[in-house]
Amino acid sequence: MSAKKLDQINDHLTANIDKYVKELGNAVGIKSVSGDPQYRDETRRMVAEYGKNELERLGATVELRELGTEPGTNPPLQLPPVILAQLGNDPAKKTVCIYGHLDVQPAEKSDGWNTEPFVLTEIDGKMYGRGSTDDKGPVLAWFNVIEAYQKLNLDIPINIKFCFEGMEESGSVGLEELVMSEKDKFFKDVDFTCISDNYWLGQKTPCVTYGLRGISYFLVEVKCAKQDLHSGVHGGVVHEAMTDLCHIFNSLVSSDGSIKIDHMNDDVKPLTPEEEATYEPIDFDTEVYKQELGVTQLAHNSKAKVLQHRWRFPSLSIHGVEGAFYGAGAKTVIPHNVIGKFSIRLVPNMDPNKVLKLVQDYIAKVHAATGSPNTVSVTSIHGAPAWVGDFNDVNFTAGRNAVKRVFGREADLTREGGSIPITLTFEEATGKSVMLLPIGSSDDAAHSQNEKLNRSNFLNGMKVLAAYFEEIANLSKK
Amino acid sequence: MSAKKLDQINDHLTANIDKYVKELGNAVGIKSVSGDPQYRDETRRMVAEYGKNELERLGATVELRELGTEPGTNPPLQLPPVILAQLGNDPAKKTVCIYGHLDVQPAEKSDGWNTEPFVLTEIDGKMYGRGSTDDKGPVLAWFNVIEAYQKLNLDIPINIKFCFEGMEESGSVGLEELVMSEKDKFFKDVDFTCISDNYWLGQKTPCVTYGLRGISYFLVEVKCAKQDLHSGVHGGVVHEAMTDLCHIFNSLVSSDGSIKIDHMNDDVKPLTPEEEATYEPIDFDTEVYKQELGVTQLAHNSKAKVLQHRWRFPSLSIHGVEGAFYGAGAKTVIPHNVIGKFSIRLVPNMDPNKVLKLVQDYIAKVHAATGSPNTVSVTSIHGAPAWVGDFNDVNFTAGRNAVKRVFGREADLTREGGSIPITLTFEEATGKSVMLLPIGSSDDAAHSQNEKLNRSNFLNGMKVLAAYFEEIANLSKK
Repeated sequence: MSAKKLDQINDHLTANIDKYVKELGNAVGIKSVSGDPQYRDETRRMVAEYGKNELERLGATVELRELGTEPGTNPPLQLPPVILAQLGNDPAKKTVCIYGHLDVQPAEKSDGWNTEPFVLTEIDGKMYGRGSTDDKGPVLAWFNVIEAYQKLNLDIPINIKFCFEGMEESGSVGLEELVMSEKDKFFKDVDFTCISDNYWLGQKTPCVTYGLRGISYFLVEVKCAKQDLHSGVHGGVVHEAMTDLCHIFNSLVSSDGSIKIDHMNDDVKPLTPEEEATYEPIDFDTEVYKQELGVTQLAHNSKAKVLQHRWRFPSLSIHGVEGAFYGAGAKTVIPHNVIGKFSIRLVPNMDPNKVLKLVQDYIAKVHAATGSPNTVSVTSIHGAPAWVGDFNDVNFTAGRNAVKRVFGREADLTREGGSIPITLTFEEATGKSVMLLPIGSSDDAAHSQNEKLNRSNFLNGMKVLAAYFEEIANLSKK
Repeated sequence: MSAKKLDQINDHLTANIDKYVKELGNAVGIKSVSGDPQYRDETRRMVAEYGKNELERLGATVELRELGTEPGTNPPLQLPPVILAQLGNDPAKKTVCIYGHLDVQPAEKSDGWNTEPFVLTEIDGKMYGRGSTDDKGPVLAWFNVIEAYQKLNLDIPINIKFCFEGMEESGSVGLEELVMSEKDKFFKDVDFTCISDNYWLGQKTPCVTYGLRGISYFLVEVKCAKQDLHSGVHGGVVHEAMTDLCHIFNSLVSSDGSIKIDHMNDDVKPLTPEEEATYEPIDFDTEVYKQELGVTQLAHNSKAKVLQHRWRFPSLSIHGVEGAFYGAGAKTVIPHNVIGKFSIRLVPNMDPNKVLKLVQDYIAKVHAATGSPNTVSVTSIHGAPAWVGDFNDVNFTAGRNAVKRVFGREADLTREGGSIPITLTFEEATGKSVMLLPIGSSDDAAHSQNEKLNRSNFLNGMKVLAAYFEEIANLSKK
C-alpha cells in the first residue's frame, strides 16, 4: 500500500470539501422522515431515486428490493425499498459490505431548532441539519471516497456491496428478513462489514466500536376493576392497580441501578483482566460527563466503572405507565388498567428468551407475595441480544490503522450502550466480522434538536474511510 | 302538621310530574359546562337568567353576586355569578338555606352516550341527560315543591335562603370566600342547611348523609438530570427519577390499602360501639358492589368494614405520573423530571396541614435511605378536612322523618367517601347543622356517560323535600 496513494486521495478530498458539503445539503433537503406517513413519499424518493442515482453514477449495479406495505398501517403504507448494490467484482479482491440508512428522525423548527432543520446551515464549522450526522453524512462520505478514487483513476482495492435502507429510524421494518433471505446469495461472498452510524465517545478522540448492548422491552399490565374508579367513593376497599404496579417496579431495581431480579446477573460475561485493561486508555472524563447530563452524582465513581455500566453490564430503566393519569394538575382517579413500561439492556451471554422468563417468574413471585387479587401479565415487545466483536481481528485492525493514519493516534476502543440490532444480523448472515467505524462527534445531537456534523469530522471521516479501504485490502491479502 | 296538607302537595306533585319532566328537559338543554370555556356564556346564562328567573317567578328576591374573572385564565374568563336569594322573611319561622349548583360536567355523545347528552330522553322511567341528577334535577325539585305550595295556596312553613352556584364542577371557584364574607350578613339568620347533591348508597333504599371524607392531594417531584436521557446510552450510571419515585410510591401504601406513612393513622377518630352499630341496618350488599366494580375480591370482607373504609377511614390512591412515558408502544427514555400524583382521603380529626407535614417528613426519610442524589419535593394542591354531622339533631331528624313519611321506611344513614368542601363552609358560616338529603340513585352515573335520574326518584324526591319543609318547621317549633 502506497502512502502516496492515500496522500493523493486526501488532497483530493480536502480540495473538494465545499462540493461535498453542498451535496450533503441536497441530501438533507429531502425530508425522508420514515416515521411520519406524510413524508413516506420523500423517504421512498430518498432511497429509490437519490440513493440509486448516486450509486449508479459511481458505476455500481443497483437493485431495489421492495418490502411491501408497513404492517399495521391503514390505509396500507408502502415501505421504502432496500438498496442492494455492488461495485467491483474482482475475484482477486476482498468484498466489504457497507450498511447505511437514508431516512431520518422527525424535526420541526418549532421543536427548538435554531436553524431550519432541513436546510443544511454551517455555523463555525458545524453543519446543522437533520440527518447531517445520522446517517446521510456518513453515507455520502462513502460515496465521496469512491468518487475520489475514480476521479484520480486509482484502483479501488476492494469489491464493495452496499446495503442501504430507509426505515432505520422506524425499526428497520423488513430488513432483517431480507438480509437473512439473501444470506446465501447477495451476502454470500462478503468478507467484512463496516457500518458508520454511531459516534465518538467524546468530541476529540476517534473511536472504533466493537460492542452494543441488546434490549428486552417489557409491558407489565395490572388490572383491578372493569373501569376507572373515583378515589373518594371507592378508595380504601379496592386493591388498586397502581399500588401493585409500583410494588412491582420497586422490586426490579435499586436507586443505584442494581437489578434485583433473581438470577438476572448470572449469565453476564465476567470481566477479564484483559478487558479491564481496555478501559484505562480511553479518553473519557466523568466530570465532563456529569455536567453534560446535569447530574450531581453518578451511580459509579471511576471512569472504567462508568463505561462498563454503560456498555457491558445490564441496566434496567422504568420508562412510564400507560393508562394512569399523566396530565398536569389533579385528577382523583383510581386507574383500573395500567401498563408499566420498563426495559433491560442486555449484554454478552444474556439470552432475551431466558431474560423474559426470569422477569416473568420474578414478577409473578413478587406480586403473589402481596396477596393482591389483581391479575398481572408480563410481555416483551422487543428482544435483541447484545453484540460484541473482536477488536483484534483483521477488520478492526484495518479500522484502527486507518484512524491512526489520519489522526496520528490510537483509536479509542468503545462500545455503545444502545442497540443496533442489524449489526448482529449482518454478522449472522455473513459469518464474518462487523465493525462500527463512527465519524461523528459525541455532541452531534442525533435524534435531538440542532443535529449537526462538524466539517472537520466529515473531512477526516472520509480520509479514515479511504484509509480503511487500503488497510483492509492490504491486511487481508497477507 | 297536617298529614292532609302533605297529601294535597303529594297529589299535586304527582299530577304535574310530566310538566316537571318537561321543565327539567329545558334546564338540561342549556349546556352549562363550567369546565369548558366555550360554554362559559351558557353557564353564566344558566345562573344569571334561568336560575334568577325561576326564583323570581316563585317570588324570591334575588341577588347575583359577581365573582370576577377565573384565576389563571388568559384571556380572562368571567366567572358565573352566585345566586343569593330569599323567599319569606317571617320572624316566627325558621330559616333553611338550600344549596345547589346549575353547572354540569362535560359530555359529548361520542364519549359513549346512547342518547344526546343535552336532550333529556326518557327510556323505561330513566331520564337520561347531563345534569339530570347532578344537580339540575334536585334544584328543580326544590322549585317544584315551592310552586306546589303556592298553587295550592298553602303556607310554606319556613323562610328559605338559596345559594346556587355555577362552578361546582370546576372547584366552586370563589364560593367559599363569598359564603364566609356573608357569614354575618346573608347567612346570619340561617337555622339549618340542606343540600341535595349526592346519591343513595344503592338503588332501592333512601338515605340521609351525615359525613364526607376530606382530601389532601400531593405532587411528588423527582429530578435526575437536565433533560430526558436515552436509556441505552446512559442507563446503568444514572440514579433514575422513576426508580426513586416508584420506591416512594411503594413506601406509601400496601396492596390491601393500609397506609404505611408514619403516624398517619394516629389522629383517626376511634370507632365507637355506637357508630359501629349504625352500619348493621344499612342496605348494602358487598357481592353486588363487587360486581358493580368488576373486582374479584375487596380489601375487606364484611359490609361494615367495607363501608367504614369507604367513609370513615383514610385511604391513599396513586393516580399517575406526569413527565414519564404514557403512550402506547415502546419508548426507551429515562425521564429526567417526573411528578407523581397521589391523594389521601381524610377523615374526622385529621388535619390537612398535619397530614402534609407527615407526608413530607416520611417521603424525605424514605428517599434519604436510598442514598439517591436526586432532589425530591412534595407539595399539596388541595387540602380539605372531613365533615361529619350529628344524625340525631333536629335537621337530620326532620330529613329522616321526611323519608319515612314518603317511603314508609327508615332512611339509611350514610356517609360519602368523596369530598364536597362547601358543606364544611356552610357549617362554619352558619354555625348550624348541615344535612345532605340525596334524591338520586347510586346508578345515576353522575360525571359519567348516560347520566340519568329515575322519574320515580324525581317524584319521590320532591315529596321528601316537601315533607322536610313540614318536619323541620314542626320539630324546631317544639
